[in-house]
Parts: sequence; structure tokens; C-alpha cells
Amino acid sequence: MNQNTAPAKLFFASDYMEGAHPLILQRLMETNLLHTVGYGTDEFSESARTKVRKACNAPDADVYFLVGGTQANATVIGSILRPYQGVIAAETGHVSTHEAGAIEAGGHKVITLPHKNGKLDADTIERCIQGYWDDANHEHMVMPGLVYISQPTEFGTLYSLEELTKISETCHKHDVPLYVDGARLAYGLACRQNDVMLPDLARLCDAFYIGGTKCGALFGEAVVLPRHDFIPHFFTLIKQNGALLAKGRIAGIQFETLFSEVPGSAASADSASENFPLLYEAIGQNAIDAADRIRAALVEKGYEISFECPTNQLFITVDDTQKERLEALLELSFWEKLPDGRTVLRICTSWATDSSDVDKLIEIL
Amino acid sequence: MNQNTAPAKLFFASDYMEGAHPLILQRLMETNLLHTVGYGTDEFSESARTKVRKACNAPDADVYFLVGGTQANATVIGSILRPYQGVIAAETGHVSTHEAGAIEAGGHKVITLPHKNGKLDADTIERCIQGYWDDANHEHMVMPGLVYISQPTEFGTLYSLEELTKISETCHKHDVPLYVDGARLAYGLACRQNDVMLPDLARLCDAFYIGGTKCGALFGEAVVLPRHDFIPHFFTLIKQNGALLAKGRIAGIQFETLFSEVPGSAASADSASENFPLLYEAIGQNAIDAADRIRAALVEKGYEISFECPTNQLFITVDDTQKERLEALLELSFWEKLPDGRTVLRICTSWATDSSDVDKLIEIL
Amino acid sequence: MNQNTAPAKLFFASDYMEGAHPLILQRLMETNLLHTVGYGTDEFSESARTKVRKACNAPDADVYFLVGGTQANATVIGSILRPYQGVIAAETGHVSTHEAGAIEAGGHKVITLPHKNGKLDADTIERCIQGYWDDANHEHMVMPGLVYISQPTEFGTLYSLEELTKISETCHKHDVPLYVDGARLAYGLACRQNDVMLPDLARLCDAFYIGGTKCGALFGEAVVLPRHDFIPHFFTLIKQNGALLAKGRIAGIQFETLFSEVPGSAASADSASENFPLLYEAIGQNAIDAADRIRAALVEKGYEISFECPTNQLFITVDDTQKERLEALLELSFWEKLPDGRTVLRICTSWATDSSDVDKLIEIL
Amino acid sequence: MNQNTAPAKLFFASDYMEGAHPLILQRLMETNLLHTVGYGTDEFSESARTKVRKACNAPDADVYFLVGGTQANATVIGSILRPYQGVIAAETGHVSTHEAGAIEAGGHKVITLPHKNGKLDADTIERCIQGYWDDANHEHMVMPGLVYISQPTEFGTLYSLEELTKISETCHKHDVPLYVDGARLAYGLACRQNDVMLPDLARLCDAFYIGGTKCGALFGEAVVLPRHDFIPHFFTLIKQNGALLAKGRIAGIQFETLFSEVPGSAASADSASENFPLLYEAIGQNAIDAADRIRAALVEKGYEISFECPTNQLFITVDDTQKERLEALLELSFWEKLPDGRTVLRICTSWATDSSDVDKLIEIL
Repeated sequence: MNQNTAPAKLFFASDYMEGAHPLILQRLMETNLLHTVGYGTDEFSESARTKVRKACNAPDADVYFLVGGTQANATVIGSILRPYQGVIAAETGHVSTHEAGAIEAGGHKVITLPHKNGKLDADTIERCIQGYWDDANHEHMVMPGLVYISQPTEFGTLYSLEELTKISETCHKHDVPLYVDGARLAYGLACRQNDVMLPDLARLCDAFYIGGTKCGALFGEAVVLPRHDFIPHFFTLIKQNGALLAKGRIAGIQFETLFSEVPGSAASADSASENFPLLYEAIGQNAIDAADRIRAALVEKGYEISFECPTNQLFITVDDTQKERLEALLELSFWEKLPDGRTVLRICTSWATDSSDVDKLIEIL
Repeated sequence: MNQNTAPAKLFFASDYMEGAHPLILQRLMETNLLHTVGYGTDEFSESARTKVRKACNAPDADVYFLVGGTQANATVIGSILRPYQGVIAAETGHVSTHEAGAIEAGGHKVITLPHKNGKLDADTIERCIQGYWDDANHEHMVMPGLVYISQPTEFGTLYSLEELTKISETCHKHDVPLYVDGARLAYGLACRQNDVMLPDLARLCDAFYIGGTKCGALFGEAVVLPRHDFIPHFFTLIKQNGALLAKGRIAGIQFETLFSEVPGSAASADSASENFPLLYEAIGQNAIDAADRIRAALVEKGYEISFECPTNQLFITVDDTQKERLEALLELSFWEKLPDGRTVLRICTSWATDSSDVDKLIEIL
Repeated sequence: MNQNTAPAKLFFASDYMEGAHPLILQRLMETNLLHTVGYGTDEFSESARTKVRKACNAPDADVYFLVGGTQANATVIGSILRPYQGVIAAETGHVSTHEAGAIEAGGHKVITLPHKNGKLDADTIERCIQGYWDDANHEHMVMPGLVYISQPTEFGTLYSLEELTKISETCHKHDVPLYVDGARLAYGLACRQNDVMLPDLARLCDAFYIGGTKCGALFGEAVVLPRHDFIPHFFTLIKQNGALLAKGRIAGIQFETLFSEVPGSAASADSASENFPLLYEAIGQNAIDAADRIRAALVEKGYEISFECPTNQLFITVDDTQKERLEALLELSFWEKLPDGRTVLRICTSWATDSSDVDKLIEIL
Repeated sequence: MNQNTAPAKLFFASDYMEGAHPLILQRLMETNLLHTVGYGTDEFSESARTKVRKACNAPDADVYFLVGGTQANATVIGSILRPYQGVIAAETGHVSTHEAGAIEAGGHKVITLPHKNGKLDADTIERCIQGYWDDANHEHMVMPGLVYISQPTEFGTLYSLEELTKISETCHKHDVPLYVDGARLAYGLACRQNDVMLPDLARLCDAFYIGGTKCGALFGEAVVLPRHDFIPHFFTLIKQNGALLAKGRIAGIQFETLFSEVPGSAASADSASENFPLLYEAIGQNAIDAADRIRAALVEKGYEISFECPTNQLFITVDDTQKERLEALLELSFWEKLPDGRTVLRICTSWATDSSDVDKLIEIL
């Protein structure tokens, strides 16, 4: 491969196809030769934890930095559940479909429920949990022991604060913890329609992770357990799951950078506030601004939007002619083939999306 | 923490306490904004695989880049073993002691055997395997299904080519595969006493990993399976174990750099060859050169060497007075308290060990 | 408890609420003080295996006697699947719902498919397997590695020979084995509508079990693997699953008795054949004869049949008045509450159903 | 096989080579056609639980009837341990050696400790547990979460009340539960040297099982959890482990019989008490009386006792001539071949050992 040749096509295929935000790499360079202890007990990781706790308004939270999403899900879910319990998830949930059976490999059933645009609702969850306890044979069945949702979902949709509050109340009424997968959380937080902020997640959930891999880091997900010691011996469980980084600081430095303020960033310029946004916020904002511009252009140019997605993913339904034309000029993501022969394509923006590339994309559309 | 203040003490505590070799960081910078596909199917990872295959003289090998050692061990071992099988390991093996029960969590027994300075020998392995088949009750017992050794071992010792060959023959006589954990392999390969090279490992073993985390990478271990498709569907098993990096290229770029030649390096100057050493070799050489100089100084100054270790770890037995004096000036690693009250300390060199720091250390000793 | 008092109500609640067929107990008495070796290697078990092989026309079959259905399912399924595979089952399958997550506890996903009266069809299975291979992300997903069906199903329905043949062909086209849960197989074999006999199962399936617990034994299920060594080291896997009886003969004697001929039985009297039926056949016939008489009476008396079930279970939909009246006189089984407020009740016959009790029941209806 | 032919040799090979004590079979006959509910919720099982609680002086105990020893061990141990914990056992413990890796298949390490004649001592356990907590790396290691011992042990030896009390105190000092495998408990309880009675086990242990399979039942082990709800949702865990009998009463009736008094038995005649012994006690007494007579004869005739075993197993070391002579006349059990070429043979008595057979055996010796 000749990596000096610029890619021939504009790239809007996904949000984890580049390296890391340049500020992260710069920080890794600056700190590279310092000596620290291992396994996440270093000062960078500690500083990152402090910053995450502050952003979540959760001073007692336990915060752990894991490597990837499937790993975080399997480790957290397997650590919370007791052997007789399973985890409730949407049929389309990442743990239900695209983690190669990691939850089951850990010994637990994924209890799948119907979804609406990737979302569960409180009533469906209530019926599932209450239905278990009402069933005369429930002692022969898997007990719902955790609820898993994603924010944004697999479809890029968002739970409103009202929806999330209802789900949280339903869970806790039954003493079932709630866990939120935030693989693309930066893009949810920055969305204009979003009203669920980090302190809300910390208040309403028992565990969640703040995604790094898809939000500007080389890798890494910050698992937040708002109540201290909610999962006893979680460090050992992380180790047992092969999820403990020897050089824990490499994740810590990345999250320390993501949760530091970025003076002079574009995002901050818009606000009258004297506070600069966190890098994690600025990254989300960049992707959302780009997505909003593209969405507007799509509507204007008469594209069929496959389903509403307010975050950094846009889904359009195209016929073969359109498909060929777009794919000649753009790197997009194939989503699915419809029964009528048309195709759903995904346009995805990210921290790395360049404003001038958005201009060019809009021109092409 | 004030990371601009130089550490007060000389640092010889371990080999995974800094970031990465500067050439790796540089390469991550250069490639940062290029777009690639995910999950290790990118060009950098492919190029790294090609280089690893070449270094191992194993053109058909499957090569996968995982994140850490416990993860690599659990994924490889769990993928090779059938449910009725366990893995043979030294009592002191990493999988036996310091992986929080990851192998058992995957459903398999670690069958521990006595060791000599961290090493198993072919006869002990033979007795274990043959003993299983000779036992009238063996159908009620766990079948040895894999042999796990480390090169270098937990004690920094090395298997000779003759020893490894015998172990390999013993294993294969019984149709039991052989797996080698090479977490610190660079330091073994560079050792003067070593006669086991990468092509030997590829020829004698069924699976091994080339350690990156402790040998100059930010993280990463290259799992090598010399025979193509030795583990069917290994990609899915990696995913299931939470060991699949979305941005696979981050590991790929690191190994591509580690297995590229380093023109003008110190190590190459010593050789008359026109080939420059691979970065992975240069890293090992730096640590071994430093360790050799320190070892000579220790002997000269009358220190008690706890046990012979030819690689990048040195173990000395000291009384409390010596211990206090050394620990005031140096960051070393506590190994164990002896029954006689004295202490075994470990001095560890690495890719990051500076020659002038070795001078200062020798002065202090 | 006063076990000498006859139960006040007629008992049609289930088929595993008595001890064993008297011929089984008699045989356990006769053989009680003989000494045999353990773990199913005794002569009774060997004789039982021979008789089962003969009945299945499968001279090379491996036959193992396990204790119960959940145990048999978990042991067989967990032994056939590789770690990256899951088992396809109907949403209503026993392994999907009423085994407390035993399959997942063994590390495997149950891939649930929609059913029709408890049955899967070949097209649904084909779409699931082909869909997996067609999915661009299938390497991130659980591979279908086995198909599980029940004969009779959870709803008491039966696969026809044509249906089973199609399913078998679909499975084997994709190299996916087929496993049949025969917990109530005696009642399927004896059914007039049934055209799937034991040799058909042995020819079309890769594994199945012949139920004993619900078909006249104290306990016990005969796992049949028509092709020798289809599951290597299955004995050890049985042991590991806690499914190996020390006094294996207790299961062996029961199946030896079930698969021996019963001279002078009622069933044989009907036939012109000079062969007497096997006890397993006679048991099934008794239950089916009773069920047929009850079904005819239900129809005659205008009961609403909830859904057609040709075997030993009958489902009727009743209003509260009917329900109260019946439950005052009979022990039936509550099945489910319908949205319209009515109730589905199950009437179940068995080897133990007495002809005079059927008369009384019909009178009451 | 012709089961009417008396075996040619006297049978002293094992204690699970016949059916069941005749009183058990008789009771199964008497109750055979009664209807009861399933899964151990029937009146026979309830009555058996009451009798076991009374014999253990543990009115709040949860009592469950499982099928076999490996199953009971795997289910109890896997239900008590948390994922980061392992179980301490003697190197020679049944769970360490002869259960085909069932504990590891459930995800947990067996932490093996050296033994003395099959027994652990409190100091060894203390060192293991304290050593874990003292180890600087203990968070990377498996936490001891349960202690497993057998009474009698694999070698037929017994813990004294003093020894068991010390072990119990050591465990509970560290909040580690204690579990006792009583596969041959009847033979321990009846032993003259024994001072550990059922109420002692209930007082000192957190879980134990009273063996049925080797002590006169067709099958079955009574798991006793002295403190109510010590294992939450244990019923579901039993189901998940495939250990739940549909016809639970078959186990219940056996234990109800074993824990009922036997008027007029030989054992009772010796006592001045007006209480008749429980069948479980009488069974133990028969085996111990026989073993005591055989042991005395062995000593008198100059046999070399391999090691002292006070219960129903006797171990003698013989040369090839002796071995051939004995094996021609007797069914004994091969134990092991010694380095000096001689053989250790086991003579085993049981509930089924006939007094006149003991006379004949002594004559032969």
C-alpha cells in the first residue's frame, strides 16, 4: 500500500476508520518517556477518572478504562449478573446480534425484546420482568437480572430524558439494574434533540460506558459505575476477561485528554460561556454539525430518508442508478437491501470529518 | 501530578512503564488521518502480517494482533481446547497464577506441573500425558489437550533449541499441540545464550505470540499460527473474547513498525551485515546490552545473584540495609521475602533503558 | 401425609406424576443384589443398548443413558457445538424457555425462530442458516451449529416424515447436525397420525433422545448417536456435566425393560402379528388410546379444542364456570389465561392412565 | 449375561455395585401408583427434608435431593462461588481429580493444596487464604472463595471433631464458606473412631451433602444448607445444572426411607436405647462391622496395611503371588502399582455386605 496517495473518494463510511484526534496523539507523545506504574493505577488514569467523575457529577463513581465495546459489555454484564440471570436487550441490540455470542459465552442468556427504531420502551420492559415473576414456571426460567440499552442506539436514535427516566424507574421498581452502552455517546450528547446529559446517565443508570473508540480515541471505553463498589472486585473481573491493559495509562491519557477543555475550539466560539468545551464535546459537535448540514442537503435534494436519525448517522434509500453514481464518488456504508430491490446506504460523520469534505459531498449529492 | 518534573529516582522497575518506542508513535502520527477499514483487515495490518510471516519463515501462517497477554492466552487456549481438555503449564506459569482464573473462566483446567527456574522439561510433560492415558480412570479426568510454556519464562530463563525440540516432539508424539507465550520474546531473541529464533518457534510450535506490550509497543501481541486455519473461525473467537480491535490498524501499524528495519541503529553498527536489524531486534538488543553490563557490575561488586537469568531481568538477594539504600536511590521491583528475612529484588531493563542511566545505576551499586 | 388415602380427584394433570411402570420396578427387584461394574459399563446397560440399536435399526449407534431431559439437552448440545456456534430452536422450544438458561450457561446462544404449533419448518431454518452466511457481518455473529426440535413438540404436535425429511435435508445441506428431543417420544410413536418411527429418526438425525422420565421410567433418557463416535469423548463430557450415574445399571435396567417385548399385553392383542410389542410401545399405546377416547368425548360434548394435538395432551378452552366445575372433580393442568378471560386447560394421559378412570372422566365431562 | 448364575467370586470391590437397600425398593413399590406433583415439591420429599433436618438438628436448613456426587459438587460449588473466586481442595480431592473438570467447566479454578492421607489441615488452609490476601498481586489472582473437603476422604480417612472445628474456624475467620462432600458419609458416621455427627456438620459447615448413591440408595445425594437461603435461587441453579429430577419424589422416597427408623435391626439390638437406628445408620454399621472384622483378620494374618483407614475401605499391599491368589477368589479393587512392583488392593464393604461372605473372605485371606 502506498499510504502517501490520497484516497480517491470522499470518505463517509464510518466513525472508526482513522487514528485518533490529534490532541490525543500529541499528549501520548508528550508523556511517552515518563515512567508510571501499570494496570491503570497511574496518575494519568487517576486524573482521567477525576475528570470523568466531574463531568458526570458523580463524585463516588468507580471509573475503569477498557479497550473496546464488546469487551466492556461482556465484562460489565457478566460481572453484574448472577448465574441464574440474563440480560434484557433489544432484538437489534449490539449484544444480541454483533458480539459473536460473547454474553452467552460468559454463561448468560440475552433476553431479546421487540424494539422501535432500535429503542426499548419502559412498558415492554415492565411486561417482560413482571411476566417472569407472574409465570407459574418462573423458577425453571432465566430471571431478568439487568437491562441493556444503547444511547445512541444501533439505529442512531436517542432516548429522551423522559423515556430514560421511565425505563430507570421500571428497572429499579424491580431491583433490576440498568446499563447503557455509550459506544457513540459523544454524538448523542452533542445532538440538538438530546436532553440526556452525563449527569443524567450517572443518576439514572447503574452502569454505563462512555465510548472512546468511535469518538476520537485510538481505542478505549470508560466504564462508569456511579455507586462505589457496585461491582465488587471488578478489577479482578476485568483482568479475568482479558480487559486489563498493562500500560493502563495509554487509555488513561486518552480519556484525560478527551475530558480536558479545548481552548479556542470552534465549538466554544459559538457559546457565550467563558468555559471551553471538553474535547469529547467538541468531537461530538463536529460530527453533528456535519451531519446536520448533510441532512439538510439530502432533504433539499429530495433523497428518501430511510428513517429519522438525529445523530451522526444518516440513512438514505436509493435505487441502483443512484447507488452506482454515489459509490463511484463516495465511500459510504452498505446497510441493507430492501425487498423492493433498493438499497439503504449509511452516511456517517465523525470527529475527523472535514468541513470542506462536507461541502464536496453536498455538491455531489 | 506534575509530569514535567523528572522522576527523582533511576527507574529499573519494569519493562512496561513507559509509552512506546518513538518510531511507533511517529508512525501512528504519520498515518493518523488516513482512512482504512476496520477489524484488522486494513493494509497496515496486512503489511504487518506479511512482515511477521517473513521473520518467522512461515509463509502460510495466520497472524492476528490482540491487545494483551492474558487476553491472547485465554483466546488461543480456549479456542484450541475441546471441552474435555485442559492445558498443561508450569506451576509458575502466567496462566496458572496471575491471570485471575481466565482459563478456568473459559471452562478449562490448568494442569500444573513442577518447574525448574520457570521451565518445564519434556520428561515431565511426557509423564503427565502418558500418565493420563495409562490411568484406568482417565475417562473421568481432564485430558491434556495443549502444552503452554513461556519463552522467556516468568523467571526470565530460556528454553534452548534442544529443550524446545524435545518438548515439541513429546507433544506431537501424543497429538497435543504446543503453545508458547512470548510476552517478553524480544528480550529472549536478543540474548547471547539464546538459540531459539522465530523460524524455530514457527517450526516447533502450533501457536505462539510475539509480545508487543512489554517490548516497545503501546500494547499488542501478535498471535502466530504457523499452519493456516489451525484454529477454524478464529476471527469470530477473537471477537467473542472481546479481543477484536475496531481500529485494528492501531495494532497493525505498531507491529509493522516493530518488524521493519531500522537503518543506522546502534545494534546494526555491531554487525558486518548489510541488513539493518528489525526494530523488534534492536529493542531486545538495547535491553540485553544494558542487562549484561548491570549483571557484570553486580558480580564484580559481590552482590548475591538470586538465580541465573540471562535475559532482561536480574534478581538479587539483599539484606535490609542494602535494600533500604538501593530503594532510596532506585525504582526496583520487589520480588519476594525469603524465609531468612532477606529480600529478592528485580532489576529490569527494556527498550527504554538509557545507557547513561545504566552508568548511574552501576555507580550506585 | 397419609399416602394410604386415595386422592379425592381423578388425576389427568401430567405424565410424570407417578413412579414407574410396574414391570420396571419388578425388574429392579429381581436384579437388586447382583454385583455389576459401574458407570453404565455393566451387562444390563449393554443389553439395553443392543435393544435400542435394534429398535432404531442403527447397529453402529452410540447409546448413553442420562438422567433427565434438561441434562440430556445441555450435555448433547454443549458437546456438539463449537464455541463460536449456537443452536437453532423454536421460540417455544424447551431449551429456549424452560431449562433455566442451561444452554447459555454452557456458553452457547439459543437462536430462536418463530414456530407454528411448536414446530419449525425447513424454510425457516434455511433462511436462518443461509441468512447467516449471506450477512456481510457474519463473522461477528453466532454461527448456527445445530438444529434442535422436539418430537412431539411442546404443544404435543408431531413432525410428519415429510417435514422431518425436509428439515434433515436442509440441515445437512449446510453441514449443520440435527438433534431431536424425544422427551415424550413414546406418545408420538404410538399416535395414529404418526409416520416417523425410530429408524427414521436414526436415519435423519445426528442425535436424539428417547424419553424415559415421561414415558414410564423412574427417570432416564436414552441418548442415541446413530453414527459411532459422532461426539468424541462423550463419556467424559457426560461425567463433566454431572450426568454420569455411578450405578449406571439403574438406568440400563429400565431401558432394557422398556425395550423388551411384553407378551400378552393389551396392545398386542389387537394385532395379528406374532410379535409382541415392546413395553415402550405398549406404554405409548395406552396413553394414546385414552387420549383418543377423551378427545372424541370432548368433541361430542361440544368442548372448544384450543388447538389440535394428536398425542397424549389435550387442550381445551373453558370459561370460569366450566373451569370451576372441572377443577372440583379433576386434577388437570393450567396452561394459560387468554386475553378474553377464558382459560386453556390441559388433560394429559400416560402409561399410568387407567381405562376405568377414563370412563369416569368422560362421564364428568 | 445370565443374571441368574451366582457370581463365581466373593465381591468386595466397591460400595456402589448393587441396587438399593431392600427397604428402599419396597417403599418405591408401595408408593408407585400414587400421584404427586413434580420437581421435589411432593409430600415424600417434604417428609424426607423434615427427617434430614431433624437428624442434623438444623430446623432452618434448606435440603435438596440431587442425583450424583459430581453433579452435587458442581452445582453447590458453582452456586456459592462468585466469578472471581475458586475453591480450595486437596490435591487428591474428588473435585480436583475425578470429576472430568466439572468445576472448571463451570468457570472456577480448583486451588489444590497438599494433603495428608487425603486430609487438609487448618494451617495449610490458613496459609493459602492469608497468603492470597498478603500477595501484592492478589487482585490478579483467583480469590479463595470456598473450602471443599470430604468426610470420609478419598482415602477413607476421617476428620476429627477438633480438626473440623479448626478448619471451620479458619474458614469463617476469613468469611470463606466450608463445604463437605459426604459421598460415603454413612460409613464415616458409623465408624467407632468418628466423633463428627450430623449436627456437627450442620453447625460447622455452610453446605454439605449426605451421600445416598454409595450408601444404599439407587442414586441420590441430600444437599444440606444449614442456614436458610444461603444460596439464593438454588432451585433454578439446580435446574440449570441439569440436576432437577422431574419425578423428584423418587429421590425423596429414598431419603425418607434412609432417615426412617428400622425396628428390629441388628444394629439396634446392640444398644440399650429404646430408639431404633435410622436406616442410614444401620447401613453404615453393617459396613463398618464387616470392615472391622476383615481388618482384624488382615492384621492377624500378617498382611501389610498400606495406610490406616478406619471406615469401609481397607488397603493392603501385596506382591504378585498374593495378588494372583486373591484375585482368583475375590473381586477386589486395584488401587495402584508401587515403585517396588507390589500392588495396593482395596477391599470395600457396604450396606450389602453379607456376614457369611465376610466369614468366607476371612477364610481365604
